[in-house]
Amino acid sequence: MTDRLSAQFAFLNEADRLKQVLRATTLRDGSRPENSGEHSWHLALYALVLADQAGPGVSIDRVIRMLLLHDIVEIDVGDVPIHSQNGAAHGSAETQAAEAAAASRIFGLLPPDIGPGLRALWEEFEAAETPDAVFAKSLDRVQPVLQNIESGGGSWIDYNVTFDEVEARVGQKVARGAPALWSWVRERMRAFFPDAG
Amino acid sequence: MTDRLSAQFAFLNEADRLKQVLRATTLRDGSRPENSGEHSWHLALYALVLADQAGPGVSIDRVIRMLLLHDIVEIDVGDVPIHSQNGAAHGSAETQAAEAAAASRIFGLLPPDIGPGLRALWEEFEAAETPDAVFAKSLDRVQPVLQNIESGGGSWIDYNVTFDEVEARVGQKVARGAPALWSWVRERMRAFFPDAG
Repeated sequence: MTDRLSAQFAFLNEADRLKQVLRATTLRDGSRPENSGEHSWHLALYALVLADQAGPGVSIDRVIRMLLLHDIVEIDVGDVPIHSQNGAAHGSAETQAAEAAAASRIFGLLPPDIGPGLRALWEEFEAAETPDAVFAKSLDRVQPVLQNIESGGGSWIDYNVTFDEVEARVGQKVARGAPALWSWVRERMRAFFPDAG
Repeated sequence: MTDRLSAQFAFLNEADRLKQVLRATTLRDGSRPENSGEHSWHLALYALVLADQAGPGVSIDRVIRMLLLHDIVEIDVGDVPIHSQNGAAHGSAETQAAEAAAASRIFGLLPPDIGPGLRALWEEFEAAETPDAVFAKSLDRVQPVLQNIESGGGSWIDYNVTFDEVEARVGQKVARGAPALWSWVRERMRAFFPDAG
């Protein structure tokens, strides 16, 4: 059991580094960038509180597990802001390969009866095909919108984004898993965009 | 539904403030204090990865939900470090009353079909009587021990704590829900205490 716990804590200690990966989005009061560890916690709370926005067949407990793990590869790869100049790298083949290598290293720290199962959850989230993953992705995309609304514009101002760009890069993914949620958020977002129709 | 989502987001936006509540424990590299938001995420990962340390009848998904919520009242009350001069306040009647008032305010932001259920989970954690809550408490107590080991002593040095004090304040609670885990961690902790027998 000693070796087993050593492997479990190798992963849990490594995970601590996610608290130092900074995102483009700030805290609600704009005082500092959000880190990917606290972001993952906030998203898990989103799943808990917005469960009624999920479609049929969604398991909120599986969604929570996915969200706890969804950014772990950023320990090696960093966060690629969706609205940045480098935004094209978001989801590119190169980024995907780097993330897969990070997943091999990080989930590989765990005992063999734990690591592959957690990696499979992370891959399911990335693929965004199952109902659980589609809903989890919707929450991951909508939370920065709420943070930007609350902080007075946030990364939209920093990156000079238009309403249509947010609709294309963010809205469509939110709407896929949580259409009513996106309608509600979209209306509150308008005030921040001169180009909003 | 508009009013309902307003209430759900009132809670989720308020929760953001937990990212600004600082704990006595630091990140693993000692670079800065850990905040209670990222701590809650880390603990949920502990539950996911250390599930085999839980006793019979423990639901890891319920443990994760508890851990996501367990520190939320600190938004109003702050963190009371267990080894601080003010450590006697940890669990005192006064602290408990302040935390109950905070729970009323914060969970009260939610719609009535969500808030009471989440508050009940928080109360179950606080009472530490059910198998799920006992295991959740064990993880909440053991994570700072690991962070201190990794950072070279951390809050034990800051507060000049002895091995026996850690055993009494922390070890007994960890051992209650995860005895084998505490035996393993306890051995690794010895090196940091001149008084360890």
